[in-house]
Amino acid sequence: MERIGHRALRDRVMSADEAAALIRPGDTVGMSGFTGSGYPKAIPPALAARIDAAHAAGEAFRIKLWTGASTGPELDGALSRADAVEYRLPYNSDPVGREKINRGEIDYLDMHLSHVAPMVWEGFFGKLDVAVIEVTGIKEDGSLIPATSVGNNKTWIECADKVILEVNAWHDMRLEGMHDIYYGTALPPNRVPIPMTHADDRIGQTTFRCDPAKVAGIVLTDLPDRNTPFTPIDDGSRAIAGLIVDFLEHEVRMGRMGEGLLPLQSGVGNVANAVLDGLRKSRFEGMRAYTEVLQDGMLDLLDSGKLLSCSTTALSLSPEGAKRFWAGLDDYRDKVILRTTEISNHPEVIRRLGVISMNGMIEADIYGNINSTLVMGSRIMNGIGGSGDFARNAYLSFFVSPSTAKGGKISTIVPQASHVDHITQDVQVIVTEQGLADLRGLSPKKRAEAIIAKCAHPDYRDGLQDYYDRARAGAYGLQTPQLPSESLSWHQRFIETGDMRPG
Amino acid sequence: MERIGHRALRDRVMSADEAAALIRPGDTVGMSGFTGSGYPKAIPPALAARIDAAHAAGEAFRIKLWTGASTGPELDGALSRADAVEYRLPYNSDPVGREKINRGEIDYLDMHLSHVAPMVWEGFFGKLDVAVIEVTGIKEDGSLIPATSVGNNKTWIECADKVILEVNAWHDMRLEGMHDIYYGTALPPNRVPIPMTHADDRIGQTTFRCDPAKVAGIVLTDLPDRNTPFTPIDDGSRAIAGLIVDFLEHEVRMGRMGEGLLPLQSGVGNVANAVLDGLRKSRFEGMRAYTEVLQDGMLDLLDSGKLLSCSTTALSLSPEGAKRFWAGLDDYRDKVILRTTEISNHPEVIRRLGVISMNGMIEADIYGNINSTLVMGSRIMNGIGGSGDFARNAYLSFFVSPSTAKGGKISTIVPQASHVDHITQDVQVIVTEQGLADLRGLSPKKRAEAIIAKCAHPDYRDGLQDYYDRARAGAYGLQTPQLPSESLSWHQRFIETGDMRPG
Ligand SMILES: CC(C)(COP(=O)(O)OP(=O)(O)OC[C@H]1O[C@@H](n2cnc3c(N)ncnc32)[C@H](O)[C@@H]1OP(=O)(O)O)[C@@H](O)C(=O)NCCC(=O)NCCS
Ligand SMILES: CC(C)(COP(=O)(O)OP(=O)(O)OC[C@H]1O[C@@H](n2cnc3c(N)ncnc32)[C@H](O)[C@@H]1OP(=O)(O)O)[C@@H](O)C(=O)NCCC(=O)NCCS
Repeated sequence: MERIGHRALRDRVMSADEAAALIRPGDTVGMSGFTGSGYPKAIPPALAARIDAAHAAGEAFRIKLWTGASTGPELDGALSRADAVEYRLPYNSDPVGREKINRGEIDYLDMHLSHVAPMVWEGFFGKLDVAVIEVTGIKEDGSLIPATSVGNNKTWIECADKVILEVNAWHDMRLEGMHDIYYGTALPPNRVPIPMTHADDRIGQTTFRCDPAKVAGIVLTDLPDRNTPFTPIDDGSRAIAGLIVDFLEHEVRMGRMGEGLLPLQSGVGNVANAVLDGLRKSRFEGMRAYTEVLQDGMLDLLDSGKLLSCSTTALSLSPEGAKRFWAGLDDYRDKVILRTTEISNHPEVIRRLGVISMNGMIEADIYGNINSTLVMGSRIMNGIGGSGDFARNAYLSFFVSPSTAKGGKISTIVPQASHVDHITQDVQVIVTEQGLADLRGLSPKKRAEAIIAKCAHPDYRDGLQDYYDRARAGAYGLQTPQLPSESLSWHQRFIETGDMRPG
Repeated sequence: MERIGHRALRDRVMSADEAAALIRPGDTVGMSGFTGSGYPKAIPPALAARIDAAHAAGEAFRIKLWTGASTGPELDGALSRADAVEYRLPYNSDPVGREKINRGEIDYLDMHLSHVAPMVWEGFFGKLDVAVIEVTGIKEDGSLIPATSVGNNKTWIECADKVILEVNAWHDMRLEGMHDIYYGTALPPNRVPIPMTHADDRIGQTTFRCDPAKVAGIVLTDLPDRNTPFTPIDDGSRAIAGLIVDFLEHEVRMGRMGEGLLPLQSGVGNVANAVLDGLRKSRFEGMRAYTEVLQDGMLDLLDSGKLLSCSTTALSLSPEGAKRFWAGLDDYRDKVILRTTEISNHPEVIRRLGVISMNGMIEADIYGNINSTLVMGSRIMNGIGGSGDFARNAYLSFFVSPSTAKGGKISTIVPQASHVDHITQDVQVIVTEQGLADLRGLSPKKRAEAIIAKCAHPDYRDGLQDYYDRARAGAYGLQTPQLPSESLSWHQRFIETGDMRPG
């Protein structure tokens, strides 16, 4: 209760069940949460239970669910399992949600994260009924101390008719002051420049404004973030990391960047952590990060003193990482800045800063088009997230992946991408454990030669070369030779036989 | 000669042949020119003749050619015909050049126009040897009065070892003062906000800086821009324009925009002119344009008083349009602003202003992915140009096309795009003469239903519905149901039979 500074609001404390009862069938609900942190953990399971009961009684009850990005099992997992979600945006990585989406049971709109807040404000998605936001605390004036992610919370709080808060005592009160909530955005024609010129500039305030009259309920919790265990770095990831560090060293030698590089953006996952580990062991000094998620590797890099600061919209730590983060909080406070996704992913800022962007992929085709989302062109993995915001506006955009998936049965380098998230114009460097293809300045056919030679797995290299040679001889045009009769046949073979390799 | 204010530079006047002789085999040459205006018209043909002679003598002679965007027959046409171009960026619409590219004889890098200047500065494409720039005049201090397009000229002049100028007396001297050349760009980490908040803000100077010591030659000309004749508006284009105007009226009624709309960007071509004509006849008042090209329809709109100003990087007029433009110049001077492509296409500015973007397409697939460039996935039409800069950052991005091409033998709505330039996330509205699909907020399957029902031609609608139904029943995943065994079969059928319709 002492986390609720605003006296009058103490009266709105209620149980998770009571709070869940404030949500009506058909409501559009904006919840906090970004990569498994800062999402509400008590109300969603209570809502799922309520919806389960309604369904058992033969009543229709589903909601439209908006978040910052992915959340945790208590939110996407519980609600998906209860068939409670009719519509979902902008990102999901929950396995239960994914399964329902891929069975066609949830309408899923996979969006550029930088588009979400503006388009909601512009009214393109209709009205937001309820916001359910996890916070660290409520101040005396009713303003809210954000939790371990910011995401779209500012927008949900401002746009929703009513706001329900989860005040989570698991979050250290010293988080206060780490956030940078920028209130300078507007709708056109009233937009102005975002006054940021360095990755670690602070341009906003440390709390969310919130009209106490809109707060319909408050639930007190003490529950940990998702905090997925960390997997040790494997050889393939280490090889990719080594290639990237070598390449960046080359760029520094060419005089294109200083020893501090340019602000780093890195996706989540094994390869990303390996790259951060590689940078920690490199000779670079005075680096900064401008990214969406702060993972364990970033903590190591901060601890090493080589990374001066990290701007992010969310923490995404392992359980050990979270422990370290709380233990070292007095140190991290000045180095870590948590921003709204509207700013962390803003094309204006990313292009101005000249971010070095490194993201994972599902597959790349020989011309350098990237599929980040849809396995075999149809089955969603997670979503595009912020990868498009970063890749198109980056100073250098890297896409990385092992050269094969599923024990070698899938080549991640294919004749034609079965779906495209990042067009070849947005991709400067592709890296697999086989090698690095520097695509800058290369026309499509030169790209194909580089990608096949450098990135493809030996099991698939000859097949790609053979396809490319035949396309060059017989395609409808030779700017980007493709044979539509067989450019997706590798995917088709996998669907039919479970292996892209001819039987 | 009186157009060369700088006395000492008068000594550098020479013939086009002499100027062409300053270009060496293997040079990278940056030429002016954007959509058929402001390109050099005397030196390229002289260079082509010189290269023809070299080739006849058995000598190797090719250059790497960079421009703003498309040029004219005297430039791309003459040089392509002479097999003088080894490498070309960032855009081509010349038929001879296109043919050579599609035969694999020119290495063509089709780029986002907003990427060109920054990446050249960043050193990603190597050194620029020579700049060949058409100008209206040279001032006493050696600064240059730009011509009818700005494009990348500022960058070419600054980056090239030597500069060759064509001073073209065809351009009215009253052009001086219409240009806005912004010198505030920089390389990261030194970039700052672009200080523009309205489409017609002036933020730069009216001339190009140019070190007279770098000027290696000056050629005097009096030659018209390409100025392609205007084709009268056809019924299909008029239908598309009507649907767009209705849609915008609806948005105004919903309170999402005022009567002046938001700044307009429109591509070139028949449909674009029809839309401008529709806007002229609409009830909108106080409009502004923030675009890449000013075509005849924009003049009409300016003349009507409904368009207050037009920011562009180039004029692209018919011969009659050009005559009108010169005749009305005293009036247009205050309303037309010619900027560098770096600024006209800058994501920061486009997103801030909230541009309404309208571009043509080759094809759209049922999920709303757009192909703007590669017929049957392989054969280049023109290039992506600025369409990606605008579509991703627009307030509303429209893609428009007749529902069929080649007399009905091609459906421009297909199961899967044979190439993707604009991912579905960057497309809010698709319009054909059949109807308008408002895709905002729709998940992929809802998009497919809207696009098939609203945009497809009746000859192809059942085929698309049948494909979609079967994909929904049998795809590998149901987020974006596709059947890789047949998603490109319509293209394959056209390649084999010349018709997408089953025989
Ligand atoms: C593309 C993406 C899924 C790769 O994830 P990752 O953790 O880096 O890479 P992994 O190699 O571990 O692959 C993850 C899964 O995808 C599978 N996969 C990868 N490539 C595949 C392919 N071509 N075909 C089928 N499955 C594939 C892997 O087998 C693995 O599956 P599993 O979880 O069942 O083992 C991930 O980067 C992503 O979601 N990207 C889009 C959003 C984004 O870029 N966010 C970054 C911040 S902006
Ligand atoms: C896509 C684009 C080619 C359409 O051009 P347009 O003039 O608006 O439209 P049209 O319908 O007249 O089509 C132009 C040609 O493409 C052909 N075409 C159109 N769709 C086609 C398709 N699906 N398959 C084959 N050919 C097609 C037309 O038949 C026509 O050919 P022709 O010149 O031989 O008669 C053009 O908009 C473009 O180049 N866009 C990319 C760059 C851009 O968007 N710039 C805008 C400024 S940022």
